[in-house]
Amino acid sequence: MATPVSEVVGVADLETVRELAQQLRVDSVRSSTSAGSGHPTSSMSAADVMAVLLTRHLRYDWDNPDDPANDHLIFSKGHASPLIYSMFKAVGVVSDEELMTGYRRFGHRLQGHPTPVLPWVDVATGSLGQGLPDAVGVALAGKFLDKTPYRVWVVCGDSEMAEGSMWEALDKASFYGLSNLIAIVDVNRLGQRGPTELGWDMAAYARRVEAFGARALVVDGHDLGAIDAALADAEDAARPTVILARTRKGEGFSEVADVEGWHGKPLTGDMAERAIVELGGERNLRVRGPVPPADLARPEHQARPAFTLPTYELGAKVASRRAYGQALAAIGAWTDVVALDAEVSNSTYAEDFTKAHPDRFFEIFIAEQQLVAAAVGLSVRGYVPFASTFAAFLSRAYDFIRMAAISQSDIRLSGSHAGVEIGADGPSQMALEDLAMMRAVGGSTVLYPSDATSTAKLVEVMAGLRGVSYLRTTRGAYPVLYGPDEQFAPGGSKVLRSSDADTVTLIGAGVTLHHCLAAADVLAGEGVSARVIDLYSIKPVDAATLAEAARATGGRLVVAEDHYAEGGIGGAVLEGLASALRDGDVSVRLAHLSVTELPGSGTPDELLDFAGISTPHIVEAARGLLR
Amino acid sequence: MATPVSEVVGVADLETVRELAQQLRVDSVRSSTSAGSGHPTSSMSAADVMAVLLTRHLRYDWDNPDDPANDHLIFSKGHASPLIYSMFKAVGVVSDEELMTGYRRFGHRLQGHPTPVLPWVDVATGSLGQGLPDAVGVALAGKFLDKTPYRVWVVCGDSEMAEGSMWEALDKASFYGLSNLIAIVDVNRLGQRGPTELGWDMAAYARRVEAFGARALVVDGHDLGAIDAALADAEDAARPTVILARTRKGEGFSEVADVEGWHGKPLTGDMAERAIVELGGERNLRVRGPVPPADLARPEHQARPAFTLPTYELGAKVASRRAYGQALAAIGAWTDVVALDAEVSNSTYAEDFTKAHPDRFFEIFIAEQQLVAAAVGLSVRGYVPFASTFAAFLSRAYDFIRMAAISQSDIRLSGSHAGVEIGADGPSQMALEDLAMMRAVGGSTVLYPSDATSTAKLVEVMAGLRGVSYLRTTRGAYPVLYGPDEQFAPGGSKVLRSSDADTVTLIGAGVTLHHCLAAADVLAGEGVSARVIDLYSIKPVDAATLAEAARATGGRLVVAEDHYAEGGIGGAVLEGLASALRDGDVSVRLAHLSVTELPGSGTPDELLDFAGISTPHIVEAARGLLR
Repeated sequence: MATPVSEVVGVADLETVRELAQQLRVDSVRSSTSAGSGHPTSSMSAADVMAVLLTRHLRYDWDNPDDPANDHLIFSKGHASPLIYSMFKAVGVVSDEELMTGYRRFGHRLQGHPTPVLPWVDVATGSLGQGLPDAVGVALAGKFLDKTPYRVWVVCGDSEMAEGSMWEALDKASFYGLSNLIAIVDVNRLGQRGPTELGWDMAAYARRVEAFGARALVVDGHDLGAIDAALADAEDAARPTVILARTRKGEGFSEVADVEGWHGKPLTGDMAERAIVELGGERNLRVRGPVPPADLARPEHQARPAFTLPTYELGAKVASRRAYGQALAAIGAWTDVVALDAEVSNSTYAEDFTKAHPDRFFEIFIAEQQLVAAAVGLSVRGYVPFASTFAAFLSRAYDFIRMAAISQSDIRLSGSHAGVEIGADGPSQMALEDLAMMRAVGGSTVLYPSDATSTAKLVEVMAGLRGVSYLRTTRGAYPVLYGPDEQFAPGGSKVLRSSDADTVTLIGAGVTLHHCLAAADVLAGEGVSARVIDLYSIKPVDAATLAEAARATGGRLVVAEDHYAEGGIGGAVLEGLASALRDGDVSVRLAHLSVTELPGSGTPDELLDFAGISTPHIVEAARGLLR
Repeated sequence: MATPVSEVVGVADLETVRELAQQLRVDSVRSSTSAGSGHPTSSMSAADVMAVLLTRHLRYDWDNPDDPANDHLIFSKGHASPLIYSMFKAVGVVSDEELMTGYRRFGHRLQGHPTPVLPWVDVATGSLGQGLPDAVGVALAGKFLDKTPYRVWVVCGDSEMAEGSMWEALDKASFYGLSNLIAIVDVNRLGQRGPTELGWDMAAYARRVEAFGARALVVDGHDLGAIDAALADAEDAARPTVILARTRKGEGFSEVADVEGWHGKPLTGDMAERAIVELGGERNLRVRGPVPPADLARPEHQARPAFTLPTYELGAKVASRRAYGQALAAIGAWTDVVALDAEVSNSTYAEDFTKAHPDRFFEIFIAEQQLVAAAVGLSVRGYVPFASTFAAFLSRAYDFIRMAAISQSDIRLSGSHAGVEIGADGPSQMALEDLAMMRAVGGSTVLYPSDATSTAKLVEVMAGLRGVSYLRTTRGAYPVLYGPDEQFAPGGSKVLRSSDADTVTLIGAGVTLHHCLAAADVLAGEGVSARVIDLYSIKPVDAATLAEAARATGGRLVVAEDHYAEGGIGGAVLEGLASALRDGDVSVRLAHLSVTELPGSGTPDELLDFAGISTPHIVEAARGLLR
């Protein structure tokens, strides 16, 4: 780098902004060409808007990214990573060397799409249509919880406006009056493989935005003055604002500007050289924009007073979903605990929290993607979100859950109405894939309590967990198995029946545990001693206890689960035993009872029988192993 | 039933319609009270609209549900099942006895939410926000493929308008000019746990609908004449129409009409008696509305001429995603094969099909939920849809895939860019959960070819599969392993290396198979003979070959997969061996290599090494088992 650093601190004039915009373009070209991949043209279209935002509107103390009064900047169009990384260079937190040698390289933090391994990145993006919904969660925190006037700026692509989740986000933003949320849509009219649906029909975008209750401002995304005025306008709104910036993909380099076929492709070395010449050469401008005023309100300290978990009488019949609500309401004594639900809080029992702490409950209505995204956004602000709906409907948000793991968000999900046990409502309402789905999430914790006590205890545990955690609850009421002093932890299990005479092990969780206990009674009547394990932690799984049981009972294991055969408890048991199997420490003879055919309606008992996971089937499976 | 049957054939007058509407209400109350569960009030709000539709607008030959010129009627608000079943009674295809003794009962077809076990039901609903997207697929078929003027009527709830998928559907309906699609939104203002977001703000709904390019007609949903006029108007539109019917939940029974707290609850016996009195008593009206005119166009016969699959030279490096596109283009010779993509067809290579058969390709843009729903709708019309996007982004549509299985739809999904192998783009673009997700779908088939030949062959196989099938393809190009005469089938595998001296089995699929082969070469150099299995069928899995290999190689199995540890190939192998394990036929010592930490960017080789699933790791795992 021959160019000297010219430093501009404070609000830059538009001529400086223009220079900065060209620098952002040059650096987007340089970094992606050097990496051999990336999205320079998607970066160049938004460079002008970002240059204005960075220097004149975004209030952010780059020396103190933890200042809770900083604005938030979320790149919903995460593929424009060259642009955001070039912005980080421009403010001096990333060096030119890192940009040129780290971008998209193994072991470096400037990944192909931004993730929170960078301190200035709130959430991982790259699956389109998620940054704006995440931002809604951040803005909810700002307006209702932090009560701090930071703004949440979101840079969206035009292609991603085809994702329904973007409209879930705008719907909720307007419902909650999130005037602190400002989305900028980079309408460069070209998607990955050709023109977008709406092209440059700015009026069509504006109609949709306004119809969803946000304010639409249409600007020429390459007119710095117009951009500046729109951003200033957005800062002073009573509603969420969407700035619709009409731009040209690849703007600034005539060979690619508004030309199809240049999505996600770096320029060749020759082209990059010509582009840099056309853009006026390399620059090394360093800028700093506004910072949050020292007297701007900061969020209040969160209080974590002692609370009393609900307790339950042994043998009393209590649904685990009921205990979820009661425990959540109790833990709500902590002022950083927040609950969200997708319009079924009277079924998930999140309503218990709502009644106790109405100011920390957000009704997301039937929009499960936004439900999870809001939780992610709340976790960005340090809150402890619990989001609930029917377990089956969390499948609606699987991409968001997957991305939450990449964001290393700490979110807690509760899915009620698991399995065929729900009965008459039929298969559309039955979660039969959720354990497989949630186990496969990177770093997740999957919990499936069988009684009210363990549910309440695990809800408390979840409050302290990192990453994505999931609690599966059951519709029906079953006997309380544990007294109030029993402890539960991820990776644990409970051996409920055990003796030296055990010849078979019955493993269940949720409703099937109760059937395992009943089966053990039947077997005892036949002179067979069965060990019974409550496998309440599906991930991590208690491999040691499983291996010990396998060794003690001749490898004879019966697993019964109210879930499809693939990837659920049976899979967890086998995969958990894999290292013992590898080392030859155990041998296993597994009878795996699970749902294998499409269920219909019926009573819970009829359906558990139909699925072959009820007491008589467990008894028969044990007998089979012992024959 | 004391009431005599009065039969009305042909277009009923409005007085008859009024009687029918009351009958539908009475029967909704009776059936749900008799079942002890269900949603009578959500049925009563829509009864007037349905009575008008059924008698005067829906063209449907109830004696011939297979008439391809019949209109389609999809209850997106599937919880209003008492209403649709009462309609089936009114046209005489379901008896009063079945309604009163079958509804929501085990083993009966009148399930809690409608499913296609009933011949008049196209798709399963009950997960809200899916019926309208499914209907878009049916309407696409009608307009562009069948070229038959049937109409697709969809009954939507107001709560489900909060689902982004509903707006994806309207967006695509307007983009494709689906004037044959008519949605009716039952705006009864009350959701499950209280008022909806927009209440009775009909203007707000209308603005959104119009902004998304559909025509909005607002009517009083209890004014039969107004409904009739709106339905007639909708039949004659140039655009998709959304009829916004302002209704009252529980209409017709004063104790529950427009009263909160009555969602999803049957009336008590006493209340039901009072309701029936207030509704004018039981009726037994039998009606038939219009049928498709005999001279209405029927779809043309689909042709399935012979075609030639692409072939590949052994050893040539070809990406499996490339072979997917080429094979799909070849199979496109069959005129019932249809392709869809989510704006990444130049990455998934669906573009090969687009170029060859542009009239049977639908660009869904970045809306994966609608992508899958459109495939479901096309399958309703008997087409053979293949829908493709990045495998990671199919997670966006998991609830739709789950519901497709309940619909018993025959849809084919192709997910490209699997695993860490994609390299520089980073984790947001890496499918690492997809095998777990797809395996857990009821009745699914999960295929993961390693080379171009097997990919092409499996694409052909998929065309003939029932249910949900999934093909996982790889970004990079790897050597062709199979000649053109090799055959592949669900449940199969290929033993690529085998001898009597084998002491360990290496199991891979996709990219890891190539590493297993390389590892076998390294081991051979050390005097170790390794069996190598291409496990291209992940579900069903070839349990017999796995068991045989386990027996032949002392139970020593190394599984390497480019997927998270849970529920993927390792799980498939273990679960596949479960019955052999149960019967004591094999013992297993498994070394399971999979992705266990959050990856970043890098080259494919760097990332496969990082994940511990590349050649040296496989070699070391085999050595470990042999020590």
